[in-house]
Amino acid sequence: MDMNFNQHISAQFNADLETIRNKMMTMGGLVERQIAAAIDAICDGDSAVVEEVIRREDEVDRLEVAIDNACTQVLVLRQPAASDLRMVIAVSRVVRDLERMGDEACKIAIHAREYTQSSHSQICQQAIRSMGAEVVKMLTGALDAFARADVSDAVDVVRNDKLVDQQYASALRELITYMMEDPRSISQAINILWILRAIERIGDHARNISEQVIYLVSGTDVRHSSLSEIEERTQQ
Amino acid sequence: MDMNFNQHISAQFNADLETIRNKMMTMGGLVERQIAAAIDAICDGDSAVVEEVIRREDEVDRLEVAIDNACTQVLVLRQPAASDLRMVIAVSRVVRDLERMGDEACKIAIHAREYTQSSHSQICQQAIRSMGAEVVKMLTGALDAFARADVSDAVDVVRNDKLVDQQYASALRELITYMMEDPRSISQAINILWILRAIERIGDHARNISEQVIYLVSGTDVRHSSLSEIEERTQQ
Repeated sequence: MDMNFNQHISAQFNADLETIRNKMMTMGGLVERQIAAAIDAICDGDSAVVEEVIRREDEVDRLEVAIDNACTQVLVLRQPAASDLRMVIAVSRVVRDLERMGDEACKIAIHAREYTQSSHSQICQQAIRSMGAEVVKMLTGALDAFARADVSDAVDVVRNDKLVDQQYASALRELITYMMEDPRSISQAINILWILRAIERIGDHARNISEQVIYLVSGTDVRHSSLSEIEERTQQ
Repeated sequence: MDMNFNQHISAQFNADLETIRNKMMTMGGLVERQIAAAIDAICDGDSAVVEEVIRREDEVDRLEVAIDNACTQVLVLRQPAASDLRMVIAVSRVVRDLERMGDEACKIAIHAREYTQSSHSQICQQAIRSMGAEVVKMLTGALDAFARADVSDAVDVVRNDKLVDQQYASALRELITYMMEDPRSISQAINILWILRAIERIGDHARNISEQVIYLVSGTDVRHSSLSEIEERTQQ
């Protein structure tokens, strides 16, 4: 095998990795817009936006399958090692989280329909708005951290997830108080409960993506680790 | 490269595949017991069982990471093709679903603690028992279908998931009625809501595992397909 052939293989391999990574970023951007649109739909009550989010869910699903297949192809044909291997593995994990975030955005859109039609549409709106903005920021941060292989920014996203969890717990308490005071609102309140829950889950997935940045850079598997363990292991 | 070496490679490869598959089955068995124990804890109120389920959650997580790593090793070192490749990919997807089922079992155990201490511990107990038994049966069915590469049994699990979804919707209506009649029960009822939700999610994951059986046998990716699409594509 002469050197040119080797270089050709290697150039093609780098191009493959780059393509996969770009597709993941495209998918990430789409999911980001889906989440932001679903949250806006709750606050503005725009039913065209709801339909658009539900319609584009298919696109998210197709991207997951396509990128996952591309990752498998690279693993099999190119046998990447070390950091290249971690890149492929990380991308295939990230697209799974993105797909689940897309699912949650779709759930939010479906519940938004009921939310805006209900007379109780002011309950928890502040919490929905602020948690929603926070998780979109987390996803953007996680994808940026991935693009720049920046562990410090990835750990920040894990920290923010803790704040979202606290906001969620407090919104839940507000909601329960509301239900007790006005039992006729219970059906609508449960609808809001699912919205809050979906937003909180999106935060968890953004955290998962950040964990893959740590894996990508350092090879350390921090899934199922606590924030303080992650801080210690990355010395942040 | 002489024939003996090739045979040795191939024997070692088969042994690797077998090990991964066996580990996945072990993990599946553990998760099955975790779910069954968590459901029992709700109905019997045995706090020792609750602690045991929470304690063993770590074991489930460790198995996921170990099996996932083993799959990556095989992909890289052995470059499997066709059905061997599908086996490795399917196993790595299944263990992710198993890990999430383990999470849900753990959530159920945590909520069981509150459930058994509450004065409303009769609400939805029938639904919890019957849905719980059904999803454990679904997981057993999905793992058996995987072991025997049986598409017909896998499609049965997908069908059963639809029944669990219906039971879930009806339990939710029962719960909302209860909350409206007795607003003081709302906190406890929301606790039950999370239990029902976790059981319903376990059903979804059993369905995902079955979809991997279809992928394993036929190479068809039926993720994000409806039951009728799956029936059509597998001609069941």
